Amino acid sequence: MKDCYPTRGGQEATTSPRLDPVAYQDWKPHAPITAKQLSHFDEQGFLVLDGLFDEDEIAQMQQAAFALLKDPEGIDEQTVILEPHDREVRSIFRIHRQCPSMGRLASDERITSIVRFLLDDDVYIHQSRLNFKPGFNGTEFYWHSDFETWHAEDGMPRMRAISASILLTENSEQNGPLMVIPGSHLHFLSCQGETPEDHYRASLRKQEVGTPDPESLSRLVEQGGLRSIPGQPGQVILFDCNLMHGSNGNITPFPRSNAFFVYNAISNRIGRPFSARHPRPDFIAERLIEPVRPVPSSLLAETA
Amino acid sequence: MKDCYPTRGGQEATTSPRLDPVAYQDWKPHAPITAKQLSHFDEQGFLVLDGLFDEDEIAQMQQAAFALLKDPEGIDEQTVILEPHDREVRSIFRIHRQCPSMGRLASDERITSIVRFLLDDDVYIHQSRLNFKPGFNGTEFYWHSDFETWHAEDGMPRMRAISASILLTENSEQNGPLMVIPGSHLHFLSCQGETPEDHYRASLRKQEVGTPDPESLSRLVEQGGLRSIPGQPGQVILFDCNLMHGSNGNITPFPRSNAFFVYNAISNRIGRPFSARHPRPDFIAERLIEPVRPVPSSLLAETA
Repeated sequence: MKDCYPTRGGQEATTSPRLDPVAYQDWKPHAPITAKQLSHFDEQGFLVLDGLFDEDEIAQMQQAAFALLKDPEGIDEQTVILEPHDREVRSIFRIHRQCPSMGRLASDERITSIVRFLLDDDVYIHQSRLNFKPGFNGTEFYWHSDFETWHAEDGMPRMRAISASILLTENSEQNGPLMVIPGSHLHFLSCQGETPEDHYRASLRKQEVGTPDPESLSRLVEQGGLRSIPGQPGQVILFDCNLMHGSNGNITPFPRSNAFFVYNAISNRIGRPFSARHPRPDFIAERLIEPVRPVPSSLLAETA
Repeated sequence: MKDCYPTRGGQEATTSPRLDPVAYQDWKPHAPITAKQLSHFDEQGFLVLDGLFDEDEIAQMQQAAFALLKDPEGIDEQTVILEPHDREVRSIFRIHRQCPSMGRLASDERITSIVRFLLDDDVYIHQSRLNFKPGFNGTEFYWHSDFETWHAEDGMPRMRAISASILLTENSEQNGPLMVIPGSHLHFLSCQGETPEDHYRASLRKQEVGTPDPESLSRLVEQGGLRSIPGQPGQVILFDCNLMHGSNGNITPFPRSNAFFVYNAISNRIGRPFSARHPRPDFIAERLIEPVRPVPSSLLAETA
């Protein structure tokens, strides 16, 4: 398969234009978002949605997530990633298959109808996880495009995937909220270096290969600015797979947690990695393609 | 000399009440701050002052500081502290003696009149530095009370010192602005552990001993909340020596810089360290006591 977005070939870092649409169809009256929301997503690369879930639903999500943190009984050990400097849990992967209420949330039609509309295709879950950024010493997530990694290490051919981050704790300006570079999704930044063997083991804790160079980042910020996205529990942030994002560390006492689902278009299923010897394990990059069946919102509570 | 604030004795961390005043005199009509500002400082432990300097003065400060960053010719090498993970400059100490315009700024009467009023004494400079938090990878400063370190390692007897931070770049919510716990200056948190030999070499890059325990910090935040202090260049933040403060890392492209002067009351001069074998070097903890002679603001430009 032709590599439309070469990266990590050992050459200089380069910036090239995106070759794929962002929103894969024009706005229509029956669309699950407004025309303004569609063009915001198209131009800025992200969309913030408040009020999708009611208080009870949010409480259920939080309960399910924090129960897993306290007692990860039954969770596959290899899916649990720890903070680089201590033993605190940073992420639990493949969460939609390991926790029924998270699986239900991942299929909730309030999210999936929008994602399916924007990608104009059926979708499946490429990756899912719970993220915990513990208080006091939660480490930063350095700037990255998810797509760069999914392309290089997982063999995702094109930019036709959307991530949903559902906040489980308040993200304030102080506890390391998501920061994005609006408009950065329109450029592909190739990265220097080559993917080391079993890179994922280290990179899930602290990424070092697959991060863009400072000059290119500065240029993107000059063009698009920089935006942090604080929000209340239950807030949903949808963002394009190629949007440059990251977050600062967190020395406050307040942990930052979210559920994270990556929806990839069925037509964009992953193949052989474009810049790595071996594909990453399935719990990080799903190879079993099961289209998401949207679950009506009224059913969310049932399996909580 | 009696140790009024024991710390690092190897015992459990404890919280005890402050035994010293915050503002050392009541408000008077001739005071250089308003009665409201005085009580804010007394209760919250800090004071934010905008508009003290005009644009030209701010440009001069910035020029002087960034010239030193680019070309530290003539700067005593031991006073230059690097970032823990690379070779970027984190701080230059004893800056008021190494850079005439910084020396002038440290004596500026718009700052020193307030400090002298609040401490009701002549003051001298216990420590001065330029801080640079580089963009992209500037490391966090973990929570700490400066007094705890100055008491343990420098032999500062009582809480009768005030720090002034003068912003040289914009501090936004995103690039790791100063965060404080309002009211925390009213409690002394002793720290666990003992001061290692030559601790300052490591601690100036990344502090590990002399940091309070998470439970005590959480309690302080429950009581007083948490406040980040973004601001424009030229903003002055005065804070009590025992105010708990810190700042998150900085993955943004925007560096964060400030000039930092610590004014100690002449009557509170330092002696033998209370919890360390050897005192720290003079460039970190001044032992030559020279009262600050306030410089009228109109003279600031002259030596720039």
